[in-house]
Amino acid sequence: MSEDITLSLDDAQALSLDVLQHNGFSRAHAEAITRSVMAAQRDECHSHGLYRLIGCVHTALNGGIDTQTEPEIVDKAPSVVIADARQGCSLLAFEKGSALLVEKAKRTGIAALGITHCFHFSALWPEVEALSSQGVVAIAMTPTHAFVAPAGGQRPLLGTNPIAFSWPRPDGTPYTFDFATSEVARGEIELHRRAGKTIPDHWAMDANGEPTTDPTAALAGAMRTFGGYKGSALSTMIELLAGPLIGEVLGHETQAAGPESTAKPFHGELIIALSPHVFLGQDCDHHLQHAETLFEQILGQGARLPSQRRYEARQRSLCDGVTIPQALYEEIRRLGSR
Amino acid sequence: MSEDITLSLDDAQALSLDVLQHNGFSRAHAEAITRSVMAAQRDECHSHGLYRLIGCVHTALNGGIDTQTEPEIVDKAPSVVIADARQGCSLLAFEKGSALLVEKAKRTGIAALGITHCFHFSALWPEVEALSSQGVVAIAMTPTHAFVAPAGGQRPLLGTNPIAFSWPRPDGTPYTFDFATSEVARGEIELHRRAGKTIPDHWAMDANGEPTTDPTAALAGAMRTFGGYKGSALSTMIELLAGPLIGEVLGHETQAAGPESTAKPFHGELIIALSPHVFLGQDCDHHLQHAETLFEQILGQGARLPSQRRYEARQRSLCDGVTIPQALYEEIRRLGSR
Repeated sequence: MSEDITLSLDDAQALSLDVLQHNGFSRAHAEAITRSVMAAQRDECHSHGLYRLIGCVHTALNGGIDTQTEPEIVDKAPSVVIADARQGCSLLAFEKGSALLVEKAKRTGIAALGITHCFHFSALWPEVEALSSQGVVAIAMTPTHAFVAPAGGQRPLLGTNPIAFSWPRPDGTPYTFDFATSEVARGEIELHRRAGKTIPDHWAMDANGEPTTDPTAALAGAMRTFGGYKGSALSTMIELLAGPLIGEVLGHETQAAGPESTAKPFHGELIIALSPHVFLGQDCDHHLQHAETLFEQILGQGARLPSQRRYEARQRSLCDGVTIPQALYEEIRRLGSR
Repeated sequence: MSEDITLSLDDAQALSLDVLQHNGFSRAHAEAITRSVMAAQRDECHSHGLYRLIGCVHTALNGGIDTQTEPEIVDKAPSVVIADARQGCSLLAFEKGSALLVEKAKRTGIAALGITHCFHFSALWPEVEALSSQGVVAIAMTPTHAFVAPAGGQRPLLGTNPIAFSWPRPDGTPYTFDFATSEVARGEIELHRRAGKTIPDHWAMDANGEPTTDPTAALAGAMRTFGGYKGSALSTMIELLAGPLIGEVLGHETQAAGPESTAKPFHGELIIALSPHVFLGQDCDHHLQHAETLFEQILGQGARLPSQRRYEARQRSLCDGVTIPQALYEEIRRLGSR
């Protein structure tokens, strides 16, 4: 029987900071990573919550990441910021670069932040929400490692390449989505494998390019993009914009760092911010209010908004703290000093 | 038996200019529309080729569009241009606004062009390709009328909301895609209806929100987004960015102009341009060349690039002219002066 443990937000945060600093992360990195991990855990996105500390620490112990490096922020052009993560985690580079990104977007109307040479393990929605909470519309994208075949192909080439979007709403939580351009998350196939379950045959193909219901064969083969050739096109766009456009590699040129490999996991991320105030001037409030009719009509026909479940979870966690499996808690705690 | 007629590119262009000017379009509008229609016909995108002249003229005759108006170009901010189409066709506003868009992108790194109060009937790829041919990366999006249900809903709310992307390639044609965020184009369902064929049951739902294979019931009901909730999220983003962000309406607030309706078809379009030269400086050529490895790897596993068929058609048309059904040719010719 699996038991759970409930932690206060403060205790969960202290645990995360301790584990990261005990494993060599600078205070600045530990805090930036903890903010992202805590946002995910608070919203019950367990796959990007405290669980991620394990992978993060292992990547550091395998030498796959510089845990002390300071990102370098380059004011590249009136509407472009480059944040060179210098082989550190993306999150500190995002935090340091996003201040200038927002400043530029509010001055010029639209601006871009390219994060380079970063290790990236986090969900994108905390970043686009951090931006929309400052009144700008935000889009973020990043390639991952080569797991996904392009539509019409049979071999892994594209990453699971997520894209996220956040739109500020006058009262309350933003309109936010964050999805992988693969048919499902890679972790979903992994979970089926662990549970000894088959997978639907449109999720992935085996190493011969044939549809498979066997998760092990799928993990050794190639995943499919969502929505066929359209998802594949979108995924390719993400490779290009968060890759060569910012001087970075393509997804298939990166690999997860592991104990038996000298592979380096570094790649890029692109974030675009648009300022409704610059576009609309004094009519801004009116048009942001007008956008609400779209959300009302979606909800009015019984459909949900993308992050609705997450915001409901957030309310619960703010009152009751976060709950994780006892075994996971013990595993994380053993990585720390206490 | 249906017969075809082949026209030289010059003759097809002259036909388009004649039909448009004979029906009240100013020389400037007629030329801008003809450039888009000819690009589509040349690339054998028949649905956006000469065939579109019929709808364009009927919209004008129904009073649904101002055929003489001059777009107003507003230099809104260092990275934002607004092109007010003033109830005219979007294409002249695009052409007039895009010069400033490219200038801004090449100065600030990223810029946006919002086209407002426009009648929009054209494909987006000619626009993003016009931009990528000037060395910038381009993204375009526009809402259409309410035909599509949000994921989890049953009633039409979203447009078929296309998004297009073009990436300049060092030698040859750009990497370009242009797709509707609906599962299929509305015209595809219409074609099945005319042919008396059923449709796959995941394309649309009937007026009761039930899956249907009957194209007539589908047209009276709601189409589905591609890729389920992910396509729905993307479609919603397009409504917001090409709508309220630029002071424009949402898709469900517009309607096609028709003989029995006083509905106005005007809405917005958003185009984003990014300059690789600003992002990359002297390393630009190197990284654009590096992006080619992605296309090589896609082609190398037997997959196609999104616009490949179109570029092949273009080569044929540049040699042989364009071929359309004789009946369509006669119908278009009767709209002109000759």
